Amino acid sequence: MLLNNKNTDLKPHTEALLFAASRAQHLDEVIIPNLDKVILCDRYIDSSFAYQAYGRDLGMDFVKKVNDYALCYMPDLTFYIDLDPEVGLARVSKSRSHKKDRLDSEQTIFHDKVRNGYLELAKTEKRYKVINGNQDVESIYNEILNVILERL
Amino acid sequence: MLLNNKNTDLKPHTEALLFAASRAQHLDEVIIPNLDKVILCDRYIDSSFAYQAYGRDLGMDFVKKVNDYALCYMPDLTFYIDLDPEVGLARVSKSRSHKKDRLDSEQTIFHDKVRNGYLELAKTEKRYKVINGNQDVESIYNEILNVILERL
Repeated sequence: MLLNNKNTDLKPHTEALLFAASRAQHLDEVIIPNLDKVILCDRYIDSSFAYQAYGRDLGMDFVKKVNDYALCYMPDLTFYIDLDPEVGLARVSKSRSHKKDRLDSEQTIFHDKVRNGYLELAKTEKRYKVINGNQDVESIYNEILNVILERL
Repeated sequence: MLLNNKNTDLKPHTEALLFAASRAQHLDEVIIPNLDKVILCDRYIDSSFAYQAYGRDLGMDFVKKVNDYALCYMPDLTFYIDLDPEVGLARVSKSRSHKKDRLDSEQTIFHDKVRNGYLELAKTEKRYKVINGNQDVESIYNEILNVILERL
């Protein structure tokens, strides 16, 4: 529902709630039963802040309310790999494993708002580490690994 | 997802958020564009209060938060047709048009908590009219119609 390009009539509030539903299920099935381990998780609630609160202009207050359950399980460390959206989407277009989904297909102004959202969050949230996404894959990997090893 | 009996692993928070997502989409597609008319709507947020806050023990605070958008569009008048759950479920079993769904199939204690939820809400919310569901269809119809006509 969320990623299919055909679902053009999905409204912003609905989108935010469907992502929150998916996150709640993922919490109960995967994250909470493994809290005694180190958990690496893609996206999580920061993506809802960036995409729905900032990108869809729903605001942080609304997105925090609907993700109330996830707010009880916040990460200790968050990596945001920062890149100009045009460069990022050009990479998506070249990728064989990832086709442009409903969110990728949004206009540039949406992706700029999403990026701005992440960077705003990074300013206030100490758990954020912003990684320069213009580096090659190996450099990004090593930078992240060093931060994780230091923290562990 | 919500009504299919096969989805036995759907967690309570997920269930509440999926209903809230469905409600948000319904608000944007159907209710908000018609606010200049008299709107009759089945279920709405009171069912989330009764089924998820009371039935699933998620509490009113959580269910209100995830339904924040719907709280901006509350009904002026709410009818709750009250019936002992065992009598109600026996009617469902006899019905040719409605087969027992995922929620109908819950245990008696769940349905008792849901009923208790509705009755608690009816005590504090002035917009509630509790209708005795043991009456025949025509009596229920007339009782509701009279309240609506009086209010209009």
